[in-house]
Amino acid sequence: SVNPDLASERQTASFSVEKLTALLDGGTEQTRIRRAVVEAIESDPVFSRENQYFQTQNERYEAAVRKAVHLQKKMHEMGWTENGPEYKYIYRALSGDVAFLLHRVFMRSISVLGSDKQVAKWIPLATQHKLIGSYAQTELGHGTYLQGLETTAVFDAATQEFILNTPKISAMKWWPGDMGRSATHTVVFAQLYIHGKCYGIHPFIVQIRSLQDHSLCPGITAGDIGPKMNFEHIDNGYLLLKNVRIPRENMLSKFCEVRPDGTYVRQGSQQINYFTMTTVRISLISDEVLTPLMKACTIAIRYSVVRRQSKLKPGEQEAKILDYQTQQEKLLPQLAAAYAFHFINDYLQELFNRGYKEIQRKNFDMLPELHALSSGFKAVITQHCTAGVEICLRACGGHGYSLLSGLPSLYTKILASCIYEGENTILLLQTARFLIKCFMAANAGQPVPPSVTYLAAVKHGKCPAKNKLDFLSPDIYTEAYQHVAVRLTSSTAAKLQDLIQSGVKKHDAWNQCTVQLVQAAKVSKIYLLI
Amino acid sequence: SVNPDLASERQTASFSVEKLTALLDGGTEQTRIRRAVVEAIESDPVFSRENQYFQTQNERYEAAVRKAVHLQKKMHEMGWTENGPEYKYIYRALSGDVAFLLHRVFMRSISVLGSDKQVAKWIPLATQHKLIGSYAQTELGHGTYLQGLETTAVFDAATQEFILNTPKISAMKWWPGDMGRSATHTVVFAQLYIHGKCYGIHPFIVQIRSLQDHSLCPGITAGDIGPKMNFEHIDNGYLLLKNVRIPRENMLSKFCEVRPDGTYVRQGSQQINYFTMTTVRISLISDEVLTPLMKACTIAIRYSVVRRQSKLKPGEQEAKILDYQTQQEKLLPQLAAAYAFHFINDYLQELFNRGYKEIQRKNFDMLPELHALSSGFKAVITQHCTAGVEICLRACGGHGYSLLSGLPSLYTKILASCIYEGENTILLLQTARFLIKCFMAANAGQPVPPSVTYLAAVKHGKCPAKNKLDFLSPDIYTEAYQHVAVRLTSSTAAKLQDLIQSGVKKHDAWNQCTVQLVQAAKVSKIYLLI
Repeated sequence: SVNPDLASERQTASFSVEKLTALLDGGTEQTRIRRAVVEAIESDPVFSRENQYFQTQNERYEAAVRKAVHLQKKMHEMGWTENGPEYKYIYRALSGDVAFLLHRVFMRSISVLGSDKQVAKWIPLATQHKLIGSYAQTELGHGTYLQGLETTAVFDAATQEFILNTPKISAMKWWPGDMGRSATHTVVFAQLYIHGKCYGIHPFIVQIRSLQDHSLCPGITAGDIGPKMNFEHIDNGYLLLKNVRIPRENMLSKFCEVRPDGTYVRQGSQQINYFTMTTVRISLISDEVLTPLMKACTIAIRYSVVRRQSKLKPGEQEAKILDYQTQQEKLLPQLAAAYAFHFINDYLQELFNRGYKEIQRKNFDMLPELHALSSGFKAVITQHCTAGVEICLRACGGHGYSLLSGLPSLYTKILASCIYEGENTILLLQTARFLIKCFMAANAGQPVPPSVTYLAAVKHGKCPAKNKLDFLSPDIYTEAYQHVAVRLTSSTAAKLQDLIQSGVKKHDAWNQCTVQLVQAAKVSKIYLLI
Repeated sequence: SVNPDLASERQTASFSVEKLTALLDGGTEQTRIRRAVVEAIESDPVFSRENQYFQTQNERYEAAVRKAVHLQKKMHEMGWTENGPEYKYIYRALSGDVAFLLHRVFMRSISVLGSDKQVAKWIPLATQHKLIGSYAQTELGHGTYLQGLETTAVFDAATQEFILNTPKISAMKWWPGDMGRSATHTVVFAQLYIHGKCYGIHPFIVQIRSLQDHSLCPGITAGDIGPKMNFEHIDNGYLLLKNVRIPRENMLSKFCEVRPDGTYVRQGSQQINYFTMTTVRISLISDEVLTPLMKACTIAIRYSVVRRQSKLKPGEQEAKILDYQTQQEKLLPQLAAAYAFHFINDYLQELFNRGYKEIQRKNFDMLPELHALSSGFKAVITQHCTAGVEICLRACGGHGYSLLSGLPSLYTKILASCIYEGENTILLLQTARFLIKCFMAANAGQPVPPSVTYLAAVKHGKCPAKNKLDFLSPDIYTEAYQHVAVRLTSSTAAKLQDLIQSGVKKHDAWNQCTVQLVQAAKVSKIYLLI
């Protein structure tokens, strides 16, 4: 039975809920498919999340493994495939507590970075789950700055092997998901040395656990990094390598190869690697960032309809808290943002699919722009959605603070999106670097990529709004944000030049402008969002 | 051994750390006492928090009970008393995971609301821990609006008892700390009925568990409300009452009494009750709000000194992340705020001690002002400190997200301070009500309390800052905030009057202005803070 306060609110909707649902899903057929997936998953007791907040970390890990294994059976039973229309709804319906997500990243990195021979060897093994893969990039002392990774892979021509080592504690791999307890293999990023010369970071397939008894392989020390703010079900791990020998064939060699005699050969372009990171940043927005905000809005707004507190009018029943202006001011902007981001996300996905096609045709022209766009949008959207979920949580008072409301775990999980796949401040600075470069180019009369042509069209002048009503026009905001974006970019560019001309070294000058640069990058993305 | 990066930063301090410590503590003698307490507690293995993040909720509860019991022994052994100079450092050093804090609230409410006879009966029992007390006010459906509580206490003249009931699910007591598993007694707030007439909310001492075997008493249903975002060690509880009979003597009757024949007698003033709530709001600021921000700043800034990432200058070692302008912009304002709030807190404590003395002399003149001040400051300071802790957490990237950094638990705990002891938006609206009243009075030439005299001195005119350097003068900010506070208050007052004059009912007009009213209240408190 539906709470009568909820039922009465629903009757007042001025639109067709079913039509809006279809619009959000992308058509009635999509809605049908989504509902079928949700129904199949929610009715399956193995996928139940009913007791998750009462489980220990270990119980949650075990449940996540159980679900991952059961999912394979379920997909087979339901006829769902990784390329089928149901696939994108599965993980959304499971709502997160599933193990082996890094297995997919392991496979993707082999597909993208591996030679045809490597793909032919490893992908079938992974597909049949004859091994469990992970992805070991981040180290205890190194995250964003990939060049700073310290793990070494020294080529030994005598044995045709690479010898992998963790030279010091800060070089220990730290954070890789599924690696603390589950993974048998991982892709290790390490500094390649041949005959004493360093060739920079390269990816290596390393077996870390026995396929017979799951014990750690010789030279491997690995385990769980301990509890985090969320992701209790994931065995984020650490990994220490001591003289671990792997065959020469285990260096992923689509783009770079070490020949038997130690000759280093670079083949093709490595730019495609960066594009993979770029697409990951965009692809996480939907499930990891927008869905949590949508859920938080739904929970908080429904709660605000059924919760009554104080009297708006003397002598009446206590009022629904949604009827208070302060509650509306908290929640309605988050709801509006959820809709706005949903449609922006559709646009971004399309843009990146287009970019991907171009790149497959060996046209890399869009790369810098796509990198800047993905970095900036990831930072701005994760930041906004995280703040939105927190507002929803607080707007539910004490009940929002109970884990059973679902809001605390939505918050503690979405918060991580501001940090992973590129910490937001670093990403905004990368966006800013692109903006400054384009602004300089535009000023010098050179062509600039489509998303930043506005930088060339510097407008002076005042806000065209003349009265209150003008502020209801979206154009006013678009123009205002364009103005702010251009102004912040140009004034920071000018400050940078002034500093350099006054004798400050380029890198110092850059550091002295980074607060402004971050601001310019944010506003430039907000301008593109509206 | 100290990390060399930390050691070198410490050598560059331009001030005496020992002098600053003494200043913060309030003198070298205080520092000595504090350090002795910290040393005694940190060296005691029963008080260890080493494994807390790996413990289940049940293990944390049991550890908290163990610590609470051990603390009594420890205090006796060390010669610490509740009135001694060591007392205020004990809970700070224990850092939170201690049970039975509500026992103190139980005792305080009896001391404040009970008759001399009741105090003489219950306080010795509580002091000797012959019972464990709790405080049951909030209900599942009722928080801030006390008049809305639904639990009933019906006087039965025949038996000289009150019969307590939970008439429906929304009336179930919900949240009381120490009540889920520990408490044997609690103070229940209920609507008093005598001969069918309701006399409003009154406090009653109710035994809920046996003193023999700790089983629930007849008519009592109680238990734990389940996991929360933090406070794993606390058994926040629920309580359902079914025809629970308590003797007439159990209604706390310093101010109101029910005579044997059912005559209701009000004695003295109830205003003192509100003052108790007011002082609690101010007293929680130090331990529950400022200390977490100080800890978060310490953790994040130390981390930023030992963590190196990317190169500021080509060819050099990777830079300490504290050397990046963006990191400084995140952390240094939080550190500055922690100092500012520390000294403001000293001032507030002194102000409220003065107020308390006046009230003991039956002078209640300061009450409205102290209520408005405590509400507004509680809201503004908890809001600011919560945001500050979150900034510190995010500034540490992935490592800040690990529970082992301490930052997630600082954040999830301080967040509750925005909700408990009066939800912040509600508190700001209470402050705003006071502001509007004072503004109207000032406009009518009537006297206003000292903290709002600035409302009478409306200034027009422009910002006196003429150049960049002027913005380094605190006076500019004080004046600007005063200007904003007056302007927001006066414009909201004008809007309220306009709405009412145009025929909108008073309560509707108020609701239509609440977003602005909250803003006015915030700015008025920020103005007083600087």
